[in-house]
Amino acid sequence: MQITGTLLIGQQSVNGSNGTVRAINASTGTSIEPPFGGATLADLDRACALASEAFDAYRETTPDQRATFLETIAQNILAIGDILIERCMVESGLPRGRLEGERARTVNQLRLFADVVRNGDFIGARVDPAQPERKPMPRADLRLRHISVGPVAVFGASNFPLAFSVAGGDTASALAAGCPVIVKAHSAHPGTAELVGRAVQQAVKACALPEGTFSLLYDSGREIGQGLVKDPRIKAAGFTGSRAGGTALMKLAAARPEPIPVYAEMSSINPVLLFPGALHNRAEDIAKAFVQSLVLGAGQFCTNPGLVLGVDGTDLDRFIGAASTALEAAPAQTMLTPGIHNAYACAVKKTQTQADVKTAARGAIATGEHQAQAALFVTTAEAFRHNPELHEEIFGASSLIVRCPTIDTLLELVESLEGQLTAALHIDEVDHDAARPFLPALERRAGRILVNGFGTGVEVSHAMVHGGPFPSTADGRSTSVGSLAIDRFLRPVSYQDLPDSLLPDALKHENPLGLNRRIDGKLHLTD
Amino acid sequence: MQITGTLLIGQQSVNGSNGTVRAINASTGTSIEPPFGGATLADLDRACALASEAFDAYRETTPDQRATFLETIAQNILAIGDILIERCMVESGLPRGRLEGERARTVNQLRLFADVVRNGDFIGARVDPAQPERKPMPRADLRLRHISVGPVAVFGASNFPLAFSVAGGDTASALAAGCPVIVKAHSAHPGTAELVGRAVQQAVKACALPEGTFSLLYDSGREIGQGLVKDPRIKAAGFTGSRAGGTALMKLAAARPEPIPVYAEMSSINPVLLFPGALHNRAEDIAKAFVQSLVLGAGQFCTNPGLVLGVDGTDLDRFIGAASTALEAAPAQTMLTPGIHNAYACAVKKTQTQADVKTAARGAIATGEHQAQAALFVTTAEAFRHNPELHEEIFGASSLIVRCPTIDTLLELVESLEGQLTAALHIDEVDHDAARPFLPALERRAGRILVNGFGTGVEVSHAMVHGGPFPSTADGRSTSVGSLAIDRFLRPVSYQDLPDSLLPDALKHENPLGLNRRIDGKLHLTD
Repeated sequence: MQITGTLLIGQQSVNGSNGTVRAINASTGTSIEPPFGGATLADLDRACALASEAFDAYRETTPDQRATFLETIAQNILAIGDILIERCMVESGLPRGRLEGERARTVNQLRLFADVVRNGDFIGARVDPAQPERKPMPRADLRLRHISVGPVAVFGASNFPLAFSVAGGDTASALAAGCPVIVKAHSAHPGTAELVGRAVQQAVKACALPEGTFSLLYDSGREIGQGLVKDPRIKAAGFTGSRAGGTALMKLAAARPEPIPVYAEMSSINPVLLFPGALHNRAEDIAKAFVQSLVLGAGQFCTNPGLVLGVDGTDLDRFIGAASTALEAAPAQTMLTPGIHNAYACAVKKTQTQADVKTAARGAIATGEHQAQAALFVTTAEAFRHNPELHEEIFGASSLIVRCPTIDTLLELVESLEGQLTAALHIDEVDHDAARPFLPALERRAGRILVNGFGTGVEVSHAMVHGGPFPSTADGRSTSVGSLAIDRFLRPVSYQDLPDSLLPDALKHENPLGLNRRIDGKLHLTD
Repeated sequence: MQITGTLLIGQQSVNGSNGTVRAINASTGTSIEPPFGGATLADLDRACALASEAFDAYRETTPDQRATFLETIAQNILAIGDILIERCMVESGLPRGRLEGERARTVNQLRLFADVVRNGDFIGARVDPAQPERKPMPRADLRLRHISVGPVAVFGASNFPLAFSVAGGDTASALAAGCPVIVKAHSAHPGTAELVGRAVQQAVKACALPEGTFSLLYDSGREIGQGLVKDPRIKAAGFTGSRAGGTALMKLAAARPEPIPVYAEMSSINPVLLFPGALHNRAEDIAKAFVQSLVLGAGQFCTNPGLVLGVDGTDLDRFIGAASTALEAAPAQTMLTPGIHNAYACAVKKTQTQADVKTAARGAIATGEHQAQAALFVTTAEAFRHNPELHEEIFGASSLIVRCPTIDTLLELVESLEGQLTAALHIDEVDHDAARPFLPALERRAGRILVNGFGTGVEVSHAMVHGGPFPSTADGRSTSVGSLAIDRFLRPVSYQDLPDSLLPDALKHENPLGLNRRIDGKLHLTD
């Protein structure tokens, strides 16, 4: 497979003429061939028109057709072979092992959604049979299914060039729901985007789906991304990135004549709570695991542990000591883009100069141009309480430990936090009673609560929530990882007294799709 | 039970001192005693503080406790007796039969949600058991449940003083989900609001729930309604009313530092499509049923059939003739408020003067001051196509028939419509093939599709959708009627590796609540 630098609009390869996106070698900062032509507004219009045309046919594909399509995409991504990993390594600066793992995750994610589609429970079929004899009024026959919301815009993420980009979680769940997808590639990895985009494009063709089911656009500025969210044919958007970027899209979407949901996954510091018993028994072990999670992938994860709250004392000193030792041994790592590296360096510098913040440790000094040096800071509860800047996410391997005088202070600081993707409790059995009152506070502000673990390493499964109250995401009622992510792109439609021949298969009397259905409120399984 | 004019803040009765809301006799326009004191910002703050304090305890009540609470509210509403119906008749101008029916509906709705809570499926419990031996990485134990979003603001609706107001569908579904509720009473029926509010307040006490579970406020202007949506402790809002009111709340909610969902049910003209076969066989019968639906409750329903599209010809002439005859016999009816009556009269007058719009019939002339005269207009496809004002909702018993030259024109006009709550197809067997291509177009823009019926008379059941794409509602992914309405007030939380003693009952290993659960993606029923 060749990287050509063209947009993929339906089945066509189109030379974008609206400026140029250039891939950058993350390690050296030098640009890589070929240049990618930015989409024009006419390209955007064409992609939206195709998506809109494709919508009715695509959303009525059978579960099996749609599942096969997702599996074909997975197969095609694997078939690209090593060229995908190599290109992605250069563009992202991420090591081979990580990217091979991410490819496996991306492929498994597509297959998970194929299973979800075949299972059919996401349709949420409901039947309230007619009651013609009911007094004082007869009851009509009512049937409900969920249909897809319409064409979806997906924004590629800088930090997951595979798993949260062209054929990542947003795309997989939207396609599974029955939504055509238009991806705006992230400018940091356009070559990776094209390779994966072609895998999707070829799957569309192989499965004989309408060509507008998928398009891929590059944006040399912000015009195309914004234009996508504003286009009346787009009915939802998925985004993983910065708080500034996500909230900008939320505002655009809310200001449309017809507002649409934006599922933006944005910003989280993922508090880690250290309880006295666990700290006493395992301070050094927890510290080592913490630093491992902190420096993983140069800390470029939404679930990176950016905040540690612990009860002050000698056990916390032991934790800080062991964490500092581990961190100092952590090699500098190349960050995803020069911009991200620069933002990280500035944020760390700023934290160093905050009142009552001490530098506990720094990682190994950088040897390459865009490498980041890990950082660990310590502050007081008082300083954290009064300085909102210490609550802000630093994207990268930097974390702040807060010395809390008592366990009550710990809970008080938890209650001062914004919405989070994850929160981790480190507890031993002796801590269980002390931990219990933390759970309501954590449930109110986090999408996932962990015990004796860290938020990095997000399982793609059925019980996962990768979401949380604002500002961790735009919409705390949703998850962007796991099978429940499909719900973001569905809406219910009710059918009253339709003759069987006009009902969708999901709701026909004979239940030809063999769906589990809720009949008069009660679930009935077919197997 | 006495009507005292006081706010209900938790268990307290408080004299509001921020201006006065006066109930108006809908038939005469004269004001009724007592005056209701408007809430101050301090009252609002107190209600929000109580709701926020109540949240953790209320949301963790057992399914049985919460169901009993809903049933107690229902019982208490019935126990008010005839004073409720009489007060409501005076305040709303609606007849006794309608209000007795609406009371039954309100009570049944509370009981339906009690069943939904006891059933427990709304919790959406999921378990992905740990796989400690999995390679390359072990899988953690992951468990997911839905919790309630937080305190909810509910706005009473003018047109359903019982079923969509203080203890109506929004309140019932929010309480069922586990959300404390603060109601802003509609100024058109404050006495009805207080009576029902006291029924809820007493149920809170009888069930020994935290007092902040429910409060009721009157608003002498817009300060309290707006203040509720802006308050950081409020996490969602439910509204039924005008497009202007709903979109104003949507904008407020989107502009908050932490945006929240607003479920506003706003505006719909509920297209009725007349197909040639049905028209030929049953023009007169359909016309009579249509007028019956149109004038029901003075046309003051969100699902009122405000638009009829039919293929032009002698059969449509027969329909128009029969509908005109039926409409002319329709008595004038008192509208809910002088303001609503005035808006109706102005809108009808404006329609009369639109180019190419002819008045087909008017109902009986009004004899009372705030009575409305029904109206039926006819226009051409050409005029409808080019005049967006003809697409706007007229709240009341007014409808517009559009003569379409062909069935293709009919489909074309359907594709020009905004989002709708309902769409009705009138078809005989001979029309089925012609109707089929309409379904995708209707699914894209309506929440409920009916055959040979009309949208009025919204069943409160499991397969009902009373929702639809904007502007029919703020959020087309939701319904405000039926058991699915509970989903609006829930968000998922995932628990990773929690010891059993710290897990919520819904997710404990022994499944003490006896919930149906999804295990590794597959539903398992407990009975």
